[in-house]
Amino acid sequence: MLSGAPSYTGSVNKGPLLTEVGVVGAGPVGLAVAWRCARRGLRVVVYDDRPGSGASAVAAGMLAPVAEAYFGEHELTALLVESAARWPGFAAELAEASGVDLGHRTEGTLVVGLTADDLTEARRLWAYQQGLGLPITPLRPSALRDREPALAPRVRGGAVAAGDHQVDPRRLVAALRIAAERAGVVFRPARVGALSEVDARITVVAAGCGAAALTGLPVRPVKGQVLRLRAPGGGPPGFRHVIRGYADGESVYLVPRDSGEVVVGATVEERADTEVTAGGVLRLLRAAVELVPELTEYELVEAVAGLRPGTPDNAPILGTLPGRPDVVVATGHHRHGIVLTPVTADLVTELIVTGEPDPALAPFTPDRFPKEPRWN
Amino acid sequence: MLSGAPSYTGSVNKGPLLTEVGVVGAGPVGLAVAWRCARRGLRVVVYDDRPGSGASAVAAGMLAPVAEAYFGEHELTALLVESAARWPGFAAELAEASGVDLGHRTEGTLVVGLTADDLTEARRLWAYQQGLGLPITPLRPSALRDREPALAPRVRGGAVAAGDHQVDPRRLVAALRIAAERAGVVFRPARVGALSEVDARITVVAAGCGAAALTGLPVRPVKGQVLRLRAPGGGPPGFRHVIRGYADGESVYLVPRDSGEVVVGATVEERADTEVTAGGVLRLLRAAVELVPELTEYELVEAVAGLRPGTPDNAPILGTLPGRPDVVVATGHHRHGIVLTPVTADLVTELIVTGEPDPALAPFTPDRFPKEPRWN
Repeated sequence: MLSGAPSYTGSVNKGPLLTEVGVVGAGPVGLAVAWRCARRGLRVVVYDDRPGSGASAVAAGMLAPVAEAYFGEHELTALLVESAARWPGFAAELAEASGVDLGHRTEGTLVVGLTADDLTEARRLWAYQQGLGLPITPLRPSALRDREPALAPRVRGGAVAAGDHQVDPRRLVAALRIAAERAGVVFRPARVGALSEVDARITVVAAGCGAAALTGLPVRPVKGQVLRLRAPGGGPPGFRHVIRGYADGESVYLVPRDSGEVVVGATVEERADTEVTAGGVLRLLRAAVELVPELTEYELVEAVAGLRPGTPDNAPILGTLPGRPDVVVATGHHRHGIVLTPVTADLVTELIVTGEPDPALAPFTPDRFPKEPRWN
Repeated sequence: MLSGAPSYTGSVNKGPLLTEVGVVGAGPVGLAVAWRCARRGLRVVVYDDRPGSGASAVAAGMLAPVAEAYFGEHELTALLVESAARWPGFAAELAEASGVDLGHRTEGTLVVGLTADDLTEARRLWAYQQGLGLPITPLRPSALRDREPALAPRVRGGAVAAGDHQVDPRRLVAALRIAAERAGVVFRPARVGALSEVDARITVVAAGCGAAALTGLPVRPVKGQVLRLRAPGGGPPGFRHVIRGYADGESVYLVPRDSGEVVVGATVEERADTEVTAGGVLRLLRAAVELVPELTEYELVEAVAGLRPGTPDNAPILGTLPGRPDVVVATGHHRHGIVLTPVTADLVTELIVTGEPDPALAPFTPDRFPKEPRWN
């Protein structure tokens, strides 16, 4: 058990009605932590007045540690790689526990550049990724088109990240909810306005953007607009790979699902509203259609915006809150909440159960930010 | 009364429970005919299982006989001009009768060309319109920008059609419904599958695209996709005129409403589905933003598609069905249903009441098409 939590010591023997872990937030991270803790025999309550309504409801579900590896973020990249490696086992276990098909697909990701400029930018990133030893393999244009004939003839070049997969975040949330309930987790449809409202030995703050108000940590909303298209005629999309593309300086991803759905994302905006704007939709559609022209014929089914929990260094915040050994934070996953769900759940659960932080948590602790956080 | 209608002769004296006019279709045309007929003392029943759900629910509501006057359609243009001239009186009378504000606005329409090619095309059309004596006045770029500073600096030139106004079609339908009910019109929420189902002396077919199946007339669905944007901050849009623009070969119109709404329309597609497509939305947004850049910041509130009732010569079909003197057709209004509502209602009501077709109906009679229609 968490060694620094005085109010928690010996609590396991205090009777069956005492909540051992109170999780604030029923997104993928909160649900996965709750599920894992319940499987370890802890009594868990999850608080959320609108479960699954946060960033995960909008997310595309790319499990792409390689294609998303970015300059200067090597510690984050290492965590992404580690979590992606845990995904197949996590998915199998969760599908088994919930009976829900997660839409976990392993065709890999193509990273493509539309113009010569786009390709130049992409190649610099591939060189960086290869320098980290990550498996990204440039393809000749003919090989690229052989793999994915739906790509526009204009596309200048690309690479394959064969290990970068995808999952459907909405199914993930549904599956985690079922698995958690089956493991004995109790759900309270309540909004937590202050940590003092949580009556538990250990409180886990997995509240996404809401963590800022609860902990004072520097988590800020980063708006993302996402579209959902549907292939005509009820069939699957005309391409199989996740496509991460650069198109006239615009970055876009296309995630095809077996259901016929294609997720097109996402804008990255330093705004806290969730309005879908003409400009956001225009940018996404233009880049998507330039990369895969057949998308013009697809139905536009949904346009939504969500708020990612961003942090100053784009990395998540994982660990005990300074001065509050009874509070564990698991937020700030920004653009990587889905891929980071397994490793977050594993590390946070271990921290709660053993009281010892895994060394892998060291780069992501809440105390890494210069200013003292305030909390209530 | 309609002289050629044997079953109708003398019917006025047959008792108060007999329906004199059965109108199929509760769109603007059907409702306006019903209202006018009821005001003339006729007993009217309107049949529609989904009132106001047709093309009018999607329409922008431009009253633009000049900006919409097109090569080779001078008879249609004359009818558009005549109906637009009746609009102010019709709107005043209807607002009075219903208590509904129709959103009737008279700021006029600017017709603009984005590129030199667009402007060349627009100028050819203006010359044609001026040749017909229509009031369209080219503006110098500085005068154009003085009138509407929200236009993109790239816009090469434009003209003003000061008499081309706008109305809100959804309010129009609501107002007509109230006015008709107040005048004694009875509504039956039923779908008419055959003319024999209508128990009335005179049947008016105002069923939009549905008229084809009822009458055999060559009315075909012409799909139109339309967007509704909303100005940020709850204020009105940053421009006052209706803007009909040509942008890189794309034709688009922007209709600002006092509520903050801007209607962006419309695709013209020879298809019978009502799917909103990625390509349709992309074309509309791209052209709209190129003409009025501030629209990028507007919320995208709605994307819908409707089916216009198109005809072989793009003109409406108005008059008695050949061989069926008890059936009057008022459909095929294509892109012009809203502007043509007053003149259609007036001419059709006169035909029903007097039995004599106004000479203005001559170019639009159902018998003008070469092939014999079939009906049931």
